Amino acid sequence: MEKSIFYHAGCSVCVSAEQDIINLIGDDNVEVVHIGENRSRIDEAENAGVKSVPALLTPNGNVLHINFGASMADVRG
Amino acid sequence: MEKSIFYHAGCSVCVSAEQDIINLIGDDNVEVVHIGENRSRIDEAENAGVKSVPALLTPNGNVLHINFGASMADVRG
Repeated sequence: MEKSIFYHAGCSVCVSAEQDIINLIGDDNVEVVHIGENRSRIDEAENAGVKSVPALLTPNGNVLHINFGASMADVRG
Repeated sequence: MEKSIFYHAGCSVCVSAEQDIINLIGDDNVEVVHIGENRSRIDEAENAGVKSVPALLTPNGNVLHINFGASMADVRG
């Protein structure tokens, strides 16, 4: 299975959701990207349809926005 | 692993998220509950912390609200 990508920005909502997602789908099946630190990937996330973090981009290209930590506008600052 | 529970209300956002979640964590690992039809489980969902659907209740008791289909108030109608 192709990997999912979990985008987050380090907020407490993000970290909690990250642990849940890793527990559910397995560490090997998800790439975790901190777009607050790895800002070069903000464009990639937005192009994939990410509107807020935390969000999970599935292998088939759907975006699951999980709870609500921060909007992408807040991440850009 | 104990099962997760995916609560939804039949909306298109719910159905799309349901397919993604089942693909990610596996049919055997999630119970799907349609609280629009199975209204006796609305209280259970709210007591677990579900504020909107679709939502995934993880085995450790956390609630992941996924995208946004409908508030619980809308489900109660």
